[in-house]
Formats: sequence, C-alpha cells, structure tokens
Amino acid sequence: MRTAAERALGVHRVLDPPGVLPQAAQRLDADPAIALDEVRIAVERLNLDAASFRQLSEAHGGDGDAVRAAVLEIVRTRGKMQNPVTGSGGMLMGVVDAVGPESPLGLVVDQRVATLVSLSLTPLWITDGLDRWDGRSEQVPAHGTAILFARSIAAVLPDDLPDAVALAVLDVCGAPALTARVVERTGARSVAVLGAAGKSGCLSLAAAAAAGAQDLTGLVRNESEAAALRAAGLADRVVVADATDPLAVAAAVGTPADLTVVCVDVPGAEHGAVLATADGGTVVFFSMATSFPAAALGAEGMAADVTMLVGNGYTPGHAALALDLYRSNPGVRALVDPRVTGC
Amino acid sequence: MRTAAERALGVHRVLDPPGVLPQAAQRLDADPAIALDEVRIAVERLNLDAASFRQLSEAHGGDGDAVRAAVLEIVRTRGKMQNPVTGSGGMLMGVVDAVGPESPLGLVVDQRVATLVSLSLTPLWITDGLDRWDGRSEQVPAHGTAILFARSIAAVLPDDLPDAVALAVLDVCGAPALTARVVERTGARSVAVLGAAGKSGCLSLAAAAAAGAQDLTGLVRNESEAAALRAAGLADRVVVADATDPLAVAAAVGTPADLTVVCVDVPGAEHGAVLATADGGTVVFFSMATSFPAAALGAEGMAADVTMLVGNGYTPGHAALALDLYRSNPGVRALVDPRVTGC
Repeated sequence: MRTAAERALGVHRVLDPPGVLPQAAQRLDADPAIALDEVRIAVERLNLDAASFRQLSEAHGGDGDAVRAAVLEIVRTRGKMQNPVTGSGGMLMGVVDAVGPESPLGLVVDQRVATLVSLSLTPLWITDGLDRWDGRSEQVPAHGTAILFARSIAAVLPDDLPDAVALAVLDVCGAPALTARVVERTGARSVAVLGAAGKSGCLSLAAAAAAGAQDLTGLVRNESEAAALRAAGLADRVVVADATDPLAVAAAVGTPADLTVVCVDVPGAEHGAVLATADGGTVVFFSMATSFPAAALGAEGMAADVTMLVGNGYTPGHAALALDLYRSNPGVRALVDPRVTGC
Repeated sequence: MRTAAERALGVHRVLDPPGVLPQAAQRLDADPAIALDEVRIAVERLNLDAASFRQLSEAHGGDGDAVRAAVLEIVRTRGKMQNPVTGSGGMLMGVVDAVGPESPLGLVVDQRVATLVSLSLTPLWITDGLDRWDGRSEQVPAHGTAILFARSIAAVLPDDLPDAVALAVLDVCGAPALTARVVERTGARSVAVLGAAGKSGCLSLAAAAAAGAQDLTGLVRNESEAAALRAAGLADRVVVADATDPLAVAAAVGTPADLTVVCVDVPGAEHGAVLATADGGTVVFFSMATSFPAAALGAEGMAADVTMLVGNGYTPGHAALALDLYRSNPGVRALVDPRVTGC
C-alpha cells in the first residue's frame, strides 16, 4: 500500500522497475481509469522535446513514417513518451476529461490545459496511431489519454492566444523564469544566451532584460538566425558561432558574461558556455543534451570558477511569466510565431 | 597556429576531433616533449575516479588483470585516462620533471604535486604496464609522464601528510569547498549528505559545519557505514537508506534539508536528492554518475522548486580547505584513513 505522498508522485503507476519514480521508470501503467487523486486529460497534441525529436529524426534519416512508428512503439512499450536515448520527453495539450475527487490541482472538466511536467513521466495512451502526424515536426496531433498525478502541474490555456502558440511558449517556460531569478539573485549585468533565436533563447533574453540585465549578447548559429534576432531587437549584440566549438564561442562572445544561458539543443555546448562566462559567474544549462560529466570536468579542467545550474523546468510563476513576455514583447512574438505550426 | 589562450587550454594537444577542448577529445597527443608553457610530471600514482573504477570493475566481473588491461588500452588509444562509459577520469600524483619557461603555474622541478584537473583531459603516457597494480583498487601505482597546460591546477603535496592521504583528500577537494560556499551564500541551516561516510561525503559534512550549518544529516547505505559515521561524530543524525530509492531517501531524511549534497558514486540518486530537499533549497551533485535529464526532468516532474548545481571540481582555495579539514578534524581522519591504501 502506497502512502498519499508516494501516490501523489505517481509511484503506483510504475510497473518496472518497482520503487522508482515515474520519470526513472522503464514502463508505466497508462490505464485511463483514474485514481481518486488523479486527473485524466483527453490528449489533442504532443509537443516533443527538441533534443528528442532531433535524435529520432536523425536516427531514421528524416523518414517521417519511421519516426512516427518509433514514437508509437515507445509509447506502447513504455506507457509514456520518453526517448530512450535522450531521456527526455516533451509536453502535451488537451482537455480535462475527468477529475478525481481528491485531486489538489484545481482543474475542472472541459478546461483546455497544457501539462507542464515532462512527457517522460506522464502516463500516455495513444488511440489514433498518430495518423494525422507526418513525423516531420515536434508538434504531434494525437488522440488518447494522459494522467496527471496529485503532485503535478498543468496550465489552463489562455483565451487570447492560439493553442499552438501557448503550447510552444509553455513548453520552454522554465528557461525565462530561471534566467530572471538568477539575474535577480546574482545581480548579473551581462548575459549571453547560446541558441538565442530559438523559443527558450529569445524568451530568456527578454526575461533577462525584464529582470534588469543591461548587456545582452545573443549567440546564434548562422546569418539567417542572426538577421532574425537583430530584427527582433532583443539583444544588444548578436554574434554567430557554432555553440559546440568552444573556442569559436569564446571568441564570438568576447568579454565573458556574468550569466550564460545554454538553450541550444545539441550535445557539446558545455565547454563553450564555461569559456563564455566570467570568473564568479553562472551558467544555466537548459539543453536536455547537456552532459553532466562534460560540464563538471570541463569547468574543473579549465580552473573556471563558475556556478553551473541544472535548468530545472519548474520555477513558481513560470507559465504566467513566459506568456506575459510573449504578449508584451513584439520581438519574442516575431521569433516564436514562425516556429509554431498548426496555429 | 593557436593563440596563447587556446594553447593554455591544451587545444594543441587534441588529435581527434580537432577544435574541441582536451576533455571532450577522443584522443590526445601525450608526447612527453613539452611546449614553452607546459609542465611535465613524472607520474607515481593515479587515483581513478570512483564511478569510473566501479564501472570498469563491474564490466570485468572484478577480474583485476582485465581491469588493468582495460586501463592500459584506454590510455594507449586515447592518450589520457578517460573512461569511455562514465566520461570521468580521476587525478594523479608525481614529481615535477620539467617546467617550460613560459608556464604560469609557479612549479619547480622536483616538487611533489597532485594534479587537480581531471585525468579526463590530462595527456598521459604509461611506461611500466601498471605492473605494480592488481586492478582491485582506485589507487594505481604507475610510471610514466603527464602534461599540465598553462591553464591548469596542481597542488604541491604537504610535508606533514602521507602522499596517499593527501592524494585521497585532494581528489575530492571540490566537494567541501562548494558545500561551504553554498552554505555561506544561501544561509542553509540544515544539510543532508547522501553518501556521507565516503571521502567527499565526510569532508562535505565537516565543511558544512565549519561554514555554519547547524543541522547535519548523513545518509549512508548500511549499518556498518552508519556505525563508522556515528563514531566520527560528523553528523547530528545518521540514517540508512539506498540512495537510489527515492522514496526510501525521503523517508529516511524526514524533514527536507535546505541543502542536499550528493556524494554517492552510483547512478540514480537524483530523485531521492530532490525529494530530500526543501522548497527553495539547493541540491549539489558531486557524483559523476549524475544524469542531467534525470535531475532536470525529475525536479520539474515533482514541481520541486530546488536549485540544482553541477558540482564544479574547482572552487578557489579548495585544496587548502580540504587538507585543513582533514588535519583539524579527527572524525574526517577516522573515515578517510581506512580508505587510503599504500600509505
């Protein structure tokens, strides 16, 4: 018999191995029948984590049918959409379908919501074979059911934004919230964002500015992203470099920043981020492709006195902050909107 | 032609792939001939990273000869001792053999030193086939040469301690230094250390106390470690649990701590550490077996507002602090000494 605290974490849904939390589980029970403290969502759309989608797409040579089959097989065998290679998941959008009488989440049937906990720990049951998805985009139209535990987070979708926009913004809402918190707590004046033209990157730039940072550098991978970021007006300086080439990153950023935020979704950005950061400064890693040993040993090997944070996807108030930055900032909208499909 | 800043990082020693830093390299040039800004060490002893040694030992079923052969093969093919599975290395001890005229490290020929940068980025050449090592301990007697770059760290070994003791303490000196810094910066009063009876664990407890923490919990894996930790008097409370069982960790720690320090060397401790930490608190991960996605997505999935730090092995003053904690604290000595072989 599980305790209420254990049930709140979803431990009762773990089939294999027993005793771990749902995120660490090999397999979850995705049965649509809910417990007293659970909520069932009628799924409408999945938003795969960027690192996960990239890995799947590359592994299958960009063959959309093969990618779709791979996702279906993962969900069928694991009871959740957790990429076995990257370990990451994504998030989903849907309609509240049933609410257990003891659920503390405050949700009501028929509300449209996005889950703000990772798909890597969300029991998921797909019923349509993903037949409306071409396997070529992170946003996946889907029918099925998902389960929220008592200790979970879902954001009610705002009325004033298209679902796809809200989903895209909420998907990365941890990044701007933590960036803002670090700027506020450390008094960082200069901030460098690697992958600054992406969703989490541009929101992090906007959040840093809103939190009081004065000197913003956006690093992007090519001239077309640089032009878009310049036009958006979110950075004081836009530089182009391969984020996985540490020496190129250091040269492009120039004077090291008080805070470096890593928003690129490819492996190998750890060392460039450390080199781009001033002594006594902070690096926040949001990329799920981050290697823990590469970060820890790289900083040590360079005798770099930097504080390195694992980008926790949860900071209180993160959903509202990200949506407000999108609403209030034309530059953010200009960068996010083209990345949203299916509006 | 490399710039001085690039050479200082050792980029000129990277053979494959070009352009990365030495820690990320597949293969380094371990040629004993030094450049103007390098230092050559005559190696006497390697100290393998605990996670690396455990992986090698388990992969070879505890067969010491096979472990020795595996280490030799890694060093021969990579030009450094970096475990390809864990990504980690360790450190080494030896005598300064040659100092380039432009080296900024301040070392002098014949000084006995320990390198405080990881073996995972140190060019290493083994000349004795490790024939004095039985493959059954992390401490490896060895002959050969290692190279220090301009941007590197080595500690001159103290006269008052046996080499093996100094090496064992310096190997983990990043942990107590960062623990002390977090306690000082955050004002954490309660601290929980997972893996508290090990070298980094007991030093972290002592550092937390010295930095002003008042309520220290040491979590260990069995009763024999618990007895040793109680006898050492380093923790206010000693609890026993499997650090990879998150619910057991949460139950054992009880009231969540302001700061949790993860010093266990096995995978899977991320979720227990998050559950053991109070809202608004901090987790520092020192284990090289830490999974970045497990930490990031686990905390998000539990809606845990915790700050998670990658345990940077370098904090200014770390070597002196760790050696002083060892000298001044009988409890630390009682736990470290039995782990030191070859004194």
